[in-house]
Amino acid sequence: MRPSQRQNDELRPVSLERAVSRHAEGSCLVKFGETHVLCTASLEERVPGWLKNSGKGWVTAEYGMLPRATGERMRREAASGKQSGRTQEIQRLIGRSLRAVVDLGALGERQITVDCDVIQADGGTRTAAITGAFVALSDCLAWMESRGMVVRAKVLKDHVAAISCGISKGTAVLDLDYLEDSAAETDANFVMTGRGGIVEIQGTAEGEPFAEAQLNELLSLAKAGIADLVERQRAVLAG
Amino acid sequence: MRPSQRQNDELRPVSLERAVSRHAEGSCLVKFGETHVLCTASLEERVPGWLKNSGKGWVTAEYGMLPRATGERMRREAASGKQSGRTQEIQRLIGRSLRAVVDLGALGERQITVDCDVIQADGGTRTAAITGAFVALSDCLAWMESRGMVVRAKVLKDHVAAISCGISKGTAVLDLDYLEDSAAETDANFVMTGRGGIVEIQGTAEGEPFAEAQLNELLSLAKAGIADLVERQRAVLAG
Amino acid sequence: MRPSQRQNDELRPVSLERAVSRHAEGSCLVKFGETHVLCTASLEERVPGWLKNSGKGWVTAEYGMLPRATGERMRREAASGKQSGRTQEIQRLIGRSLRAVVDLGALGERQITVDCDVIQADGGTRTAAITGAFVALSDCLAWMESRGMVVRAKVLKDHVAAISCGISKGTAVLDLDYLEDSAAETDANFVMTGRGGIVEIQGTAEGEPFAEAQLNELLSLAKAGIADLVERQRAVLAG
Amino acid sequence: MRPSQRQNDELRPVSLERAVSRHAEGSCLVKFGETHVLCTASLEERVPGWLKNSGKGWVTAEYGMLPRATGERMRREAASGKQSGRTQEIQRLIGRSLRAVVDLGALGERQITVDCDVIQADGGTRTAAITGAFVALSDCLAWMESRGMVVRAKVLKDHVAAISCGISKGTAVLDLDYLEDSAAETDANFVMTGRGGIVEIQGTAEGEPFAEAQLNELLSLAKAGIADLVERQRAVLAG
Amino acid sequence: MRPSQRQNDELRPVSLERAVSRHAEGSCLVKFGETHVLCTASLEERVPGWLKNSGKGWVTAEYGMLPRATGERMRREAASGKQSGRTQEIQRLIGRSLRAVVDLGALGERQITVDCDVIQADGGTRTAAITGAFVALSDCLAWMESRGMVVRAKVLKDHVAAISCGISKGTAVLDLDYLEDSAAETDANFVMTGRGGIVEIQGTAEGEPFAEAQLNELLSLAKAGIADLVERQRAVLAG
Amino acid sequence: MRPSQRQNDELRPVSLERAVSRHAEGSCLVKFGETHVLCTASLEERVPGWLKNSGKGWVTAEYGMLPRATGERMRREAASGKQSGRTQEIQRLIGRSLRAVVDLGALGERQITVDCDVIQADGGTRTAAITGAFVALSDCLAWMESRGMVVRAKVLKDHVAAISCGISKGTAVLDLDYLEDSAAETDANFVMTGRGGIVEIQGTAEGEPFAEAQLNELLSLAKAGIADLVERQRAVLAG
Repeated sequence: MRPSQRQNDELRPVSLERAVSRHAEGSCLVKFGETHVLCTASLEERVPGWLKNSGKGWVTAEYGMLPRATGERMRREAASGKQSGRTQEIQRLIGRSLRAVVDLGALGERQITVDCDVIQADGGTRTAAITGAFVALSDCLAWMESRGMVVRAKVLKDHVAAISCGISKGTAVLDLDYLEDSAAETDANFVMTGRGGIVEIQGTAEGEPFAEAQLNELLSLAKAGIADLVERQRAVLAG
Repeated sequence: MRPSQRQNDELRPVSLERAVSRHAEGSCLVKFGETHVLCTASLEERVPGWLKNSGKGWVTAEYGMLPRATGERMRREAASGKQSGRTQEIQRLIGRSLRAVVDLGALGERQITVDCDVIQADGGTRTAAITGAFVALSDCLAWMESRGMVVRAKVLKDHVAAISCGISKGTAVLDLDYLEDSAAETDANFVMTGRGGIVEIQGTAEGEPFAEAQLNELLSLAKAGIADLVERQRAVLAG
Repeated sequence: MRPSQRQNDELRPVSLERAVSRHAEGSCLVKFGETHVLCTASLEERVPGWLKNSGKGWVTAEYGMLPRATGERMRREAASGKQSGRTQEIQRLIGRSLRAVVDLGALGERQITVDCDVIQADGGTRTAAITGAFVALSDCLAWMESRGMVVRAKVLKDHVAAISCGISKGTAVLDLDYLEDSAAETDANFVMTGRGGIVEIQGTAEGEPFAEAQLNELLSLAKAGIADLVERQRAVLAG
Repeated sequence: MRPSQRQNDELRPVSLERAVSRHAEGSCLVKFGETHVLCTASLEERVPGWLKNSGKGWVTAEYGMLPRATGERMRREAASGKQSGRTQEIQRLIGRSLRAVVDLGALGERQITVDCDVIQADGGTRTAAITGAFVALSDCLAWMESRGMVVRAKVLKDHVAAISCGISKGTAVLDLDYLEDSAAETDANFVMTGRGGIVEIQGTAEGEPFAEAQLNELLSLAKAGIADLVERQRAVLAG
Repeated sequence: MRPSQRQNDELRPVSLERAVSRHAEGSCLVKFGETHVLCTASLEERVPGWLKNSGKGWVTAEYGMLPRATGERMRREAASGKQSGRTQEIQRLIGRSLRAVVDLGALGERQITVDCDVIQADGGTRTAAITGAFVALSDCLAWMESRGMVVRAKVLKDHVAAISCGISKGTAVLDLDYLEDSAAETDANFVMTGRGGIVEIQGTAEGEPFAEAQLNELLSLAKAGIADLVERQRAVLAG
Repeated sequence: MRPSQRQNDELRPVSLERAVSRHAEGSCLVKFGETHVLCTASLEERVPGWLKNSGKGWVTAEYGMLPRATGERMRREAASGKQSGRTQEIQRLIGRSLRAVVDLGALGERQITVDCDVIQADGGTRTAAITGAFVALSDCLAWMESRGMVVRAKVLKDHVAAISCGISKGTAVLDLDYLEDSAAETDANFVMTGRGGIVEIQGTAEGEPFAEAQLNELLSLAKAGIADLVERQRAVLAG
């Protein structure tokens, strides 16, 4: 039995709350169980230098954790003077994931920055962040559409969501919490679109190397989990 | 009439919510209207170098703002590689304010760090932070008391809370929101104890210099406002 | 009796020496007793980005301390790679104080930077810096006036000077030196104009909170002290 | 046909040259075609803080690129004052990959740092680095074994090597050079052991999302390629 | 006898290998015995701000050492976040030395950056770097000449090369290796042109001060050594 | 004729003022004409890590310039977050020069840091700094001697002073001011002891390379100039 009493293919309770920020053009508070991430999408009328006069826009992401989002307080990155390798790795992943479903030409020469700030962490912060960031991005595009700036359906080519899987005590399980994640033999993150295409897969053997069969087992779990998450995105955006 | 339709001596709706963090020893989500600050108190069994073997502990604070807490997205301090002068000024103020009501000897050789992270800003973030940080600190001490580490009543000598006042269109007003603050001629922050002693006063003429009489008017408003905030702290801590 | 044998309302010997720098457009070596601060005003034909094409100029300040200005050598900020929170707090205060008496429109699109470098410290460096910076600024404007760039009397609306007060052994005293400052129960800095308006007030209880009556006592001392300093500014600028 | 005229499952010419550094305890110059990486393993008699008195050692990696390793000169990271997110991501990957085949307890409380410096880049620098780093690490352990410090065969549990695959013009291909990599629809890096276990898999859709079948095709290519690389490691280490 | 069994006026085996980088416009791997430095010259169509619209170009250099170029691994400068004083001193010296033989007007508004990266160090890295950087620079200019951008012979006014000398056990010796350098009483670096003019001389007494006569002895050694190096540059460039 | 109307072998008016700092163990304000450098020597009862338990002490130097020491205001190094290459080069030179006349064993395990801060610059700041730093160091050692910590005469083996020379309009001249320095063809700095030994020589051709004969001419000027400076050090220290 899993520590959280969940089935092997069972997600934690998921919630996606829209419009949680007074200021941001789009925002979403996403919860995967006790992992809570605040995602805000900010529109800026500028693009990075290499896109100037290209007619194309840019979507990027930044990631942070409040110092006491975790069991032990971590040093504040602003105080230590730099973002850790882990932070940079995650925010690059979120940005790539979002851009996989965006038509940058249809966006026009503008930048949307999605900030994903972990208010409370219990494993899976990057996958929750991607899943919530998509909702914030979608609402930002709706905000823009209502002002005649873009056609949302042209910019957003598909949904994108993410989930972690892992091999825990020899068994493939979905959506690991911190306790399970710390002890898992293999840890894998999947990012997939609404149509089931794979955008990103990152699997790491923490202990023993894993086999191809196990990888496929994890992928099956992820597919189902992400399909579920995309349904929830659809529901909340329709709401 | 004030932009927010409030009386000159009227606070914004204030709420103090305890135990909002799964991990922190004490925590409080404080709201002064649309200004929302998450305060978490973290206990560590170490002290700064200059207090080693002194038998005394330390209470300190850190302050941050999520990039889109404000009307326009601000650059993430972790990304720019340093904390701004404003950030440092505020976190030094919060730390001093808390230490004004703490008996560091009764705390013993331990450090409590109160992180104040602005989730949403609408003026008065530093005063909301001090007011909420006191509640988080108090709960952290209760956590410690329940483990026989300290006697909370010996460590905490009094309450401490803070409020901003200002002179807006010639009139002294209490608890300015961002709109009012941006246009105020004078801006002042007051930190006071439960017994009415002044811990800190910072008044700045943004436009014309102000007179002694005006300073006293602001102080009167602040006294009443802070007394009200201390009442709310008492109520929520008793709850 | 005060350690320095001064009366409670007595300033240390004050001197303001003009034109101490061969290169700067205006300069002043200010001494409050053993506290010596070199202030240089530098004119630059550029403004910060947010003022471009506004027709307005900018006055700003930077503050530094030589490593052995103090009793124990402090680490050089250029070597440690950043300015401390204290340094940033002080230079922001000096800049605000100067701007309180400057008509930025009458200055035109130019920037004056006043560097305040503490050659020797014995308490009250920020108040000495403000008092001397005004003289350096005034001379910089005279230099500009002699070249037909501005009318000094239109740019400078008033004098500005500053002094510290404190409660030491229960008594309110003026212009604390380092020895007195280290032991004071309350420490307050006042910045006021030649006409007696308050520009900035910063009061901090280092030990017990202080009462409104004490605040007013400190303010009275400060008013007299600053009036005296303004007289000295007038005298030296007339010289 | 591939730009390099290679078969889809064909590696570039690979060479592994040992003992290329006069100073390092182990070293290897690895070439995957025109991608050249110098790997040096340095032994230090210290471990990171969290391993002190644990009886366990540590293996870590650092990665760098000479400024003109690439087609256009890149800014030197030492001059810009920080390592890019990409650099950190890669050096974390190399370290994890090596640790996957190391018994840290058998190493004892010592650290081996493998520096992977790209002398010339033409795609696949991270996979070449891992493949060469293993050889440098193995030689470092041989150096230690000859001094009676460890038994190499107990520390090194298996071989580890890495290769990139990708989908280029709809076809799965092995070991992409820069030209192919820039245009590939999907890019994936695989790290596997000598016994064929998967240590790490990172797949990214640069353009269209990819399907499970494609992932498996890439994995097949990688398995064969890595088996080949491991043979070459064995040959050169036996030499 | 010298530790390396060389005569007092004998250089280490010197080699200059051209065109060692696939990407750089000019490159040279220079070896002074066991000191190996890779020099790459990169052309950029931009100049530093102060040269814009001057019609003049710029030649500059950067210097780095791989972490394990030395007997003990040194911290990677990119990881420590800054270049050491020694690194900056050396790269400034290389840049000045190259510019001494370049007509910046004949270069036109372009910048050539010569990166000198020490692959392996055994004393004399800066002098080897200057000697090899000249070859890389010359080849970069040849590359430009073949595209009609410049006339190499007009840009390069002369050769430049460098060598170290020192007083070791009371005797003046040429081209010190690390062992000799560590124990030398005086260490001097000379940069001279093909026509024998002195571009730079830096002599430091590590132990006892040295006398004028000794300085002249060192200079004599250096003249001969540099004449030899210039011959080798000529030979390899003619090859 | 030189711009300053001086003879070719004539120093600028030199003054060395002792005991100018209330706090430092030794201090000297040195003036070479309009170049003014404040030197303070600070004693600390600690040594760098590599000297612990060696019985030896350390003498080091730091160098800085006030932002408006120069004709145009320079950016404050503490604000830009790092010391320039020039600053580091100079402070390393000052430290080496002082250590050349110090017996570190006789100093005992302590560190003396000499801070050289340029209050006003007009060429030759590094040579003035070395000359003044020696006086500050000597006074620091006298302070220590009076407390029975060292015997000054055993720690200080000789005097050390420095001067710049240059070739200006084809003529060798002594002690260049800024105007002359900017236009000189060759610029050289000499550091020598009281007994006439050479500690450091740094000569740079700014324009045309220079010849051996010119180097010797510069050295002759420097010898006489430094002998004069050493006399002045003796006189002021005897005073």
